[in-house]
Amino acid sequence: MSKKNTFRLIKTCGKARAGELTTLHGVVQTPVLCPVGTQGSVKTLTPQEVKDLGMKMILANTYHLYLRPGIPIIEKLGGLHKFMNWDGVILTDSGGYQLFSLSKLTQVSDEGVIFRSHIDGSRHTVTPELAVQYQESLGSDIAMVLDECIAHDESRERVWSAMVRTHQWAERCLKAHKKREQSLYAIVQGGIFPDLRRQSAESLTTLGFDGYAIGGLSIGEPKSVTLDITEQTTVLLPSDKPRYLMGVGSPEDVVEGVARGIDIFDCALPTRVARNGALYTRKGRVDIENALFSRQEASIDTDCHCYTCRNFSAAYLHHLFRCKELLAYRLATIHNLAFMSNLVQSIKNAILNGTFDEFCREFLSVYKTTDEQTRISQKQKWLESARQKES
Amino acid sequence: MSKKNTFRLIKTCGKARAGELTTLHGVVQTPVLCPVGTQGSVKTLTPQEVKDLGMKMILANTYHLYLRPGIPIIEKLGGLHKFMNWDGVILTDSGGYQLFSLSKLTQVSDEGVIFRSHIDGSRHTVTPELAVQYQESLGSDIAMVLDECIAHDESRERVWSAMVRTHQWAERCLKAHKKREQSLYAIVQGGIFPDLRRQSAESLTTLGFDGYAIGGLSIGEPKSVTLDITEQTTVLLPSDKPRYLMGVGSPEDVVEGVARGIDIFDCALPTRVARNGALYTRKGRVDIENALFSRQEASIDTDCHCYTCRNFSAAYLHHLFRCKELLAYRLATIHNLAFMSNLVQSIKNAILNGTFDEFCREFLSVYKTTDEQTRISQKQKWLESARQKES
Repeated sequence: MSKKNTFRLIKTCGKARAGELTTLHGVVQTPVLCPVGTQGSVKTLTPQEVKDLGMKMILANTYHLYLRPGIPIIEKLGGLHKFMNWDGVILTDSGGYQLFSLSKLTQVSDEGVIFRSHIDGSRHTVTPELAVQYQESLGSDIAMVLDECIAHDESRERVWSAMVRTHQWAERCLKAHKKREQSLYAIVQGGIFPDLRRQSAESLTTLGFDGYAIGGLSIGEPKSVTLDITEQTTVLLPSDKPRYLMGVGSPEDVVEGVARGIDIFDCALPTRVARNGALYTRKGRVDIENALFSRQEASIDTDCHCYTCRNFSAAYLHHLFRCKELLAYRLATIHNLAFMSNLVQSIKNAILNGTFDEFCREFLSVYKTTDEQTRISQKQKWLESARQKES
Repeated sequence: MSKKNTFRLIKTCGKARAGELTTLHGVVQTPVLCPVGTQGSVKTLTPQEVKDLGMKMILANTYHLYLRPGIPIIEKLGGLHKFMNWDGVILTDSGGYQLFSLSKLTQVSDEGVIFRSHIDGSRHTVTPELAVQYQESLGSDIAMVLDECIAHDESRERVWSAMVRTHQWAERCLKAHKKREQSLYAIVQGGIFPDLRRQSAESLTTLGFDGYAIGGLSIGEPKSVTLDITEQTTVLLPSDKPRYLMGVGSPEDVVEGVARGIDIFDCALPTRVARNGALYTRKGRVDIENALFSRQEASIDTDCHCYTCRNFSAAYLHHLFRCKELLAYRLATIHNLAFMSNLVQSIKNAILNGTFDEFCREFLSVYKTTDEQTRISQKQKWLESARQKES
């Protein structure tokens, strides 16, 4: 009989936690940031490169893989690990977020969701049971329950009803879930309302899941709200289970999230902004297309030892971006993931050394965050452009 | 005083030649196919990957690098080898072909060419002396003279006058060329007229260059003409100098070119068709987007030991192409360059073993070539789409 994944809390420092997740596909140190391999590929990189960057766990999107190439094909070819040749840990989302953000919803009822593909308009149905079945077929190490996602500015009543439905669906997912070697995580909803978040956390922890995610954040609400809700929610979650803040993963957000008790992050941001020429440094993001870099012989970040910084000048990277050379996107992705990998490693060390508070203060005082409004409008722009590209 | 590059003919088999080119940046076995790194990058690949594929020599385009990032920047950063972090051999063209195929020509006179950039419409002048100077600044191992390129269907008179000008320019390039460690190759022109080709070869060999290229072929004329002109021209060239067939490089064309005495090829085709999903196998090109491959667990070519075929099923590659994942273009590029690398190695071995004729016959009987008309219309389509993309 196959072994269940385990989570071990190693040390805390304030609310920050250092832990270890043991799975069939390896041991993952937490806090951890999962690069996003939406369609079974961390964009531009080979699985070996992702591993060489120190990444042990990636996120893949069930919604996308369901539509292309289709779950049966991946299952026939031996599951997602084998299909994409990744022998590390895979976390799959249930598709909940994509259903509500990418597809055209036709009908949402207690039974499930009827939607139209954002690719070809074809009609599909997903239920909590199917969402579990798809993830079992993919063979991910961690699966997520199906949740009902709504916009950040919906009414309290609407947030409440989506939350109640999410709880019912979570219970059905738990019942449908058979695969012992796959963990199933619940998703706490409740929008920006602390009492609903409390109600959601209590209902879900009573059911008993392998881990708990916080959903419906970082989708347009002010950052202070994201952080407050995160902080208020983590204290309601059992300390012996991993906590996952979904869709969050800028450098500053990871630091802030860890400070509020989060163990797992996933975010397309580091790889997506890389492809837009935004590169992380300890002082903040720089735009490689800026003329400043056109003659810079040094690498983009002289403190960085990634493949890109070891081998190429900022001027070369600038040139590749200006020419839209495909190598540009890859070198930038390597750099940003190396930055995130180092950041998470430093966070872990600081927690283990009991110096996380100082680390946090220092990092946030030096790292110049991108203006909040810019971030949101960029997010919207990306979403629109992603939609247009797909349609 | 720095050493001059040398060429040594090792063995012939019929007209086919096995040789060795020794340069400051390493020894290159010939026949050789140079992958194209137009803008200082073999598209999608790192220099290390290009080297791991067995490639020792690449082509870079002076025209593109002159426009972006500009020759002075590359010179300031230590030359093209350092700029792109490639320590193998670099062959640069003079820009002649791009001036006539990509830019907007404003004026062509005996003095030189006034043209407008295909990127921003800016006005520039290039002369034979400047073309040499630019290539000296780039620091390539092999430089090409500036030539006047014209369409394949021009009148004999027009072909003749462009040829005469090309000879005058070649002489001026030779005079302007100072860099001893850089070879300078002439370009035989003369269109599809055997007597003009003869005249061109005789004029240029009298001047005495380090190597000789055949230009103005494979630009729309029937394939039999390309091969005939190649065959008629190589016999007029000195046997102790390398012979370079410019812009040619499909698998079948390389085999046919070697059979007619060519040592060096460059071609964007293997990498460009890769990005369009056309993958080489011993039996011919296959279209990876074909539904045939959607469930194929085996790699695209079970005889191939490249990184792509060792690690990924045809179904995965098919999926990546259908989703337009950036990794697709890279994995396909690796496969096609590995194919070309192996092909050239097999050709070399066959020449050394005295079995090139059999190799040639067998290869061409098994390898299903793409229909001539399709190839030409594709070439035109690519050119148009390249122009539109750049403009």
